[in-house]
Amino acid sequence: MKALDPWGSEKIEEYEEIVRKFGLQTFNAELFPSPNRLMRRGLIFAGRDLQVISECIKEKKEYYALTGIMPSGDKLHLGSKMVVEQLKYFQEHGAKTFILVADLEAASTRGVSLEDARRRAKEFHIPAYLALGLDPKKTTFYFQSENREVMRLGYEFAKHITLNEFRAIYGSADPGRIMAAVTQCGDMLFPQLEKTMPGIIPVGIDQDPHVRLCRDVVSRMKSKYGFVPISSVYHKFMPSLDGSMKMSKSAPGSMIELPEDPVSACKKLKNALSGGRNTLEEHRRLGGIPEKDMVFELLRTHLIEDDKELARIHDEYSSGAMLTGELKALGCELMTTFMNDFTQKLEKARKQVDKLHWLS
Amino acid sequence: MKALDPWGSEKIEEYEEIVRKFGLQTFNAELFPSPNRLMRRGLIFAGRDLQVISECIKEKKEYYALTGIMPSGDKLHLGSKMVVEQLKYFQEHGAKTFILVADLEAASTRGVSLEDARRRAKEFHIPAYLALGLDPKKTTFYFQSENREVMRLGYEFAKHITLNEFRAIYGSADPGRIMAAVTQCGDMLFPQLEKTMPGIIPVGIDQDPHVRLCRDVVSRMKSKYGFVPISSVYHKFMPSLDGSMKMSKSAPGSMIELPEDPVSACKKLKNALSGGRNTLEEHRRLGGIPEKDMVFELLRTHLIEDDKELARIHDEYSSGAMLTGELKALGCELMTTFMNDFTQKLEKARKQVDKLHWLS
Repeated sequence: MKALDPWGSEKIEEYEEIVRKFGLQTFNAELFPSPNRLMRRGLIFAGRDLQVISECIKEKKEYYALTGIMPSGDKLHLGSKMVVEQLKYFQEHGAKTFILVADLEAASTRGVSLEDARRRAKEFHIPAYLALGLDPKKTTFYFQSENREVMRLGYEFAKHITLNEFRAIYGSADPGRIMAAVTQCGDMLFPQLEKTMPGIIPVGIDQDPHVRLCRDVVSRMKSKYGFVPISSVYHKFMPSLDGSMKMSKSAPGSMIELPEDPVSACKKLKNALSGGRNTLEEHRRLGGIPEKDMVFELLRTHLIEDDKELARIHDEYSSGAMLTGELKALGCELMTTFMNDFTQKLEKARKQVDKLHWLS
Repeated sequence: MKALDPWGSEKIEEYEEIVRKFGLQTFNAELFPSPNRLMRRGLIFAGRDLQVISECIKEKKEYYALTGIMPSGDKLHLGSKMVVEQLKYFQEHGAKTFILVADLEAASTRGVSLEDARRRAKEFHIPAYLALGLDPKKTTFYFQSENREVMRLGYEFAKHITLNEFRAIYGSADPGRIMAAVTQCGDMLFPQLEKTMPGIIPVGIDQDPHVRLCRDVVSRMKSKYGFVPISSVYHKFMPSLDGSMKMSKSAPGSMIELPEDPVSACKKLKNALSGGRNTLEEHRRLGGIPEKDMVFELLRTHLIEDDKELARIHDEYSSGAMLTGELKALGCELMTTFMNDFTQKLEKARKQVDKLHWLS
């Protein structure tokens, strides 16, 4: 198995192998009081130093949770939704919450100006994160390009990393990636400049190399800063609707965007990979296969909160009582409700942006 | 011959070979009206695209000159003085003048805080640059960490440079150097974001790799920005007072600092490598060798402005009419005058710092 690639787009199936190979900790929902939907259903599957964060929650010690917004484009994907839901969980369980806007990275990658990147973040990405449930009063925002201490840490870390180490972690090394990686490490740790404390980064498993590099740097510079190594928690990827890869903008017909017109989303669900049988007779006799069905996957990951309700649908579908068309109709109905609700909240959140707590 | 090393400290003797190997242009003082002391005396020996700047001066076209301050320590060395004198020349010949404070680089290299680096720049380095003759009204200053566009360009450039290219230019590659190099390239070019125009970087020859990398990047990204490739002009290094290497903080007894107590400086001159003969009789008969004499080198490079006066001393010394002790006494006298003058101007410049033109 090769190195994880934070910049790649392949589907990752061997989650257990990843846990083993990269020395991750398997996620145990019992560590966390009132686990959320993603935690309960195994969609959160691994992490690093999770017991440290568990202890902070249970003993009401200070800690922080941090994630970044890449302000390119004018849509989110469902992976971002999972990150926000994790962040929300930690925010509701005592974490100081930070969201950085990676304006430098966006401007350099996507060919937009820095001003455009920042405007997009304020007009769309930040309101969208709020619409997904973050408490604006309890969240601190900053632009990467304005955070001098992050830049300073990035510079300093760069001097303590070798090319070979970078290559061992990322599988390759080039100047652009190095610069992005050390800056991200600065982001992950800068809240500890004020006070050393544990922190957790909720993120897709493909981002583990950044966490690993950063933990290496922390241990190397322990005597100078005394930083607590960063904890992380990883979600699995949403598969694309045809089941062939991880959901990605490179196959727009196979992904649901946020926001997306419900009519368009429902059309995509209709064409999604189904766990149904070839004929009605066969389906009634053998039952559908929820585990292969991308609409069921959407219900499980995003659209149905109640575990019992999800279990009921699982059983009805796998027994053959529920037909593929019925499952898709349910998916379409719930997706429509979700999208309409999201759009409403987004409008409301846009009015709050000027009142947010920005790091000065 | 190996690659030039901007981070090294060796003495460079093969200036002609460097010109040839790295495709530099030999400096021709006739390109520049009223050439300054360094230009007239061959201490400025090479550059890149010098005719472009010559044309700007002669035809009164817009161009800029830029250099950086590394705000570590509380002394300058004489190499910085040469850079400032070059900058002053271009400023007096129509260049928009920029001085950046490399606070990020200083903080990450020297283990001082960002605040300390910035305070030092304001309390010492910037006043010292002014004391050496820059016009505070015509110079624009900025802190690297506050210049978002520089950071943004650095990020973008990093994505257009390969490790192999970096290695070919610098002889090696590591994350810290890569980060410093792409940021410096951002510095060199950011004045052109407002309006594309030629710009010149006066700097020690060891910094040519940064210029080369930056010119490569410019040509690569021509279609996006239309930047004019940066010009550069290089000075030779001051040799250390024992003549063994380039003047450097690693051999403090062999370098003159700015400022330095004149008594201490004179003591160093007394011990400096001499071009005198072993005995008085021999000296009178064969004459001294000014080219080997480090005190004469200081007169030539820094302490005597008038060419005729310098020629007179050269002739008297090489004819044997002037003794080594006399040359050293003259050096001490001129050095004392220079240091006292510098210290006075430094005090005065300190009061101007708050009124400078800072980039916002």
